[in-house]
Amino acid sequence: MAAAVRAKPRLVITSGDPGGIGPELVRRALADPGIRGLAEFTVTGPADGPAADGAVLATTGAVPVGRASAAGGRAAVEAVRSAVELLAAGSADALVTAPVSKEALRLAGYRWPGQTEMLADLCAASDLRVLLMAGPLRVVHVTAHRSLRAAIDAVTPAAVLRTIELADGIGRQLVGRPPRVAVAGLNPHAGEGGILGDEDEQSIRPAVAQARSRGIDASGPLSADSLFPDAAAGGTDLVVAMYHDQGHIPVKLLGAGEGVAVTLGLPFLRMSPDHGAAFDIAGQGVARAGSMTAAVRAAAQAAGRGSPVTI
Amino acid sequence: MAAAVRAKPRLVITSGDPGGIGPELVRRALADPGIRGLAEFTVTGPADGPAADGAVLATTGAVPVGRASAAGGRAAVEAVRSAVELLAAGSADALVTAPVSKEALRLAGYRWPGQTEMLADLCAASDLRVLLMAGPLRVVHVTAHRSLRAAIDAVTPAAVLRTIELADGIGRQLVGRPPRVAVAGLNPHAGEGGILGDEDEQSIRPAVAQARSRGIDASGPLSADSLFPDAAAGGTDLVVAMYHDQGHIPVKLLGAGEGVAVTLGLPFLRMSPDHGAAFDIAGQGVARAGSMTAAVRAAAQAAGRGSPVTI
Repeated sequence: MAAAVRAKPRLVITSGDPGGIGPELVRRALADPGIRGLAEFTVTGPADGPAADGAVLATTGAVPVGRASAAGGRAAVEAVRSAVELLAAGSADALVTAPVSKEALRLAGYRWPGQTEMLADLCAASDLRVLLMAGPLRVVHVTAHRSLRAAIDAVTPAAVLRTIELADGIGRQLVGRPPRVAVAGLNPHAGEGGILGDEDEQSIRPAVAQARSRGIDASGPLSADSLFPDAAAGGTDLVVAMYHDQGHIPVKLLGAGEGVAVTLGLPFLRMSPDHGAAFDIAGQGVARAGSMTAAVRAAAQAAGRGSPVTI
Repeated sequence: MAAAVRAKPRLVITSGDPGGIGPELVRRALADPGIRGLAEFTVTGPADGPAADGAVLATTGAVPVGRASAAGGRAAVEAVRSAVELLAAGSADALVTAPVSKEALRLAGYRWPGQTEMLADLCAASDLRVLLMAGPLRVVHVTAHRSLRAAIDAVTPAAVLRTIELADGIGRQLVGRPPRVAVAGLNPHAGEGGILGDEDEQSIRPAVAQARSRGIDASGPLSADSLFPDAAAGGTDLVVAMYHDQGHIPVKLLGAGEGVAVTLGLPFLRMSPDHGAAFDIAGQGVARAGSMTAAVRAAAQAAGRGSPVTI
């Protein structure tokens, strides 16, 4: 039941849209003395971008800084493609992506609204989940960007169970032991035994029972408004939230600009900071790199513990 | 446009279930030097309960301390009835209620699950709203204890507009000027222009426009996960939340046990602390009275500013 431990995990970092703050975020994260020793780094993106001491793979030409452009969108995609090739070849253990621009991707003729959809396509993966980490909270979402009505419909026993399993897997990498997974209810007071909606009893409770039968330390459904304060106080290792706002509200309240997103369900670990391309401040050296630094640190830590262990 | 200002508002406080922590909460709140000068106090409830210097109206006999009982339920109801009579007679300006027990109410043969429903019946009021105050947040809910599906159905333009108007009214009493009211979206990213659900554009945006046409400083629908951090930082005076967890999660995260609930839509102002009857610690003098003290302070402050002013 021991996880494989490598002395130095190998991280590949994309520099994002070269017209945005991505390159400077990468540069500053890698210049952080607390970060440099954590892993071997490879950066994919324009050669004139993040000139850290990590290897840099040049992939594209000049891109205007400070605005969305087709060239920036193309460069961002090429950086991701190069990174995925390294990961597929076994030359890297985990991926950290700097921010891209939805508008630049559109200008470049891509139909992906963001890197998560791009990665899903490049890896032929589906049914992904998003874990948000901020301050004391780690929250995996059963559903994300869909209407609240559609989210309720998507809270099925199978979807909840898969989310719990993915939470358990990443939890083992992040905390180094089988994690406690607290599962939020969908309805107020987790449905109060069915009085306030039946989804908690019909969909969530059976999924938690199934997860427990597979050896996962899961509990729930729990009243979300009690669960999050408890999680913030260290009462659990990961929370499973049912829909976007249920998880994003507490994360953004406690995150203080250092939030990190982890994409679960890809063939490799992928982390991304809570930054946009921020064209308005690009190239000025004023972007705060806290979230990028936190993403790199978390990726190094998790990748250093190897793949999730199943018991 | 000036509000009526009284030198000393008159508050009536119920002592709640005498078998729970209600009497000691009232006693300790009224013993607080920072509270005593704020108002004239009348306490309704058993005479051997809160023996502060406020007038005490005895209404019932012995009640066992430390457990739910029919006698405790009856005493709790009588305390509320007496308080409502004082308010109806114009002898008090606002009400603060100590905690009762759902189980004791049931044992006593009442069908009300709590005091809010009791008050609605006694005052022949309907269509109430709950404002939660905790730390920097004041959140009024369009819907509360119903399933998430039913809550979505209940987010109508009329329901949202009424909530905004009630928020504006209590906001004037609490902050002493026309408040800024920020209205949360229902769907992720407030529906992103209709891509993630149409309720934000169909129900919420028209209600906000209508409120603005009536002179209320309302804005929205706003993405809830951005709105709450902004509100916590002082960017608005009140938030309108669409459903229970959307408002309760941030309030409980930031409330730290000093939350206060305000019932809106009754003929008078009613505040209640975030305590339960807590039979397990009743009579031991260990209950923390912070929320009760905060409720009394907020009631005195709001009642001192008189009725909401409409412009």
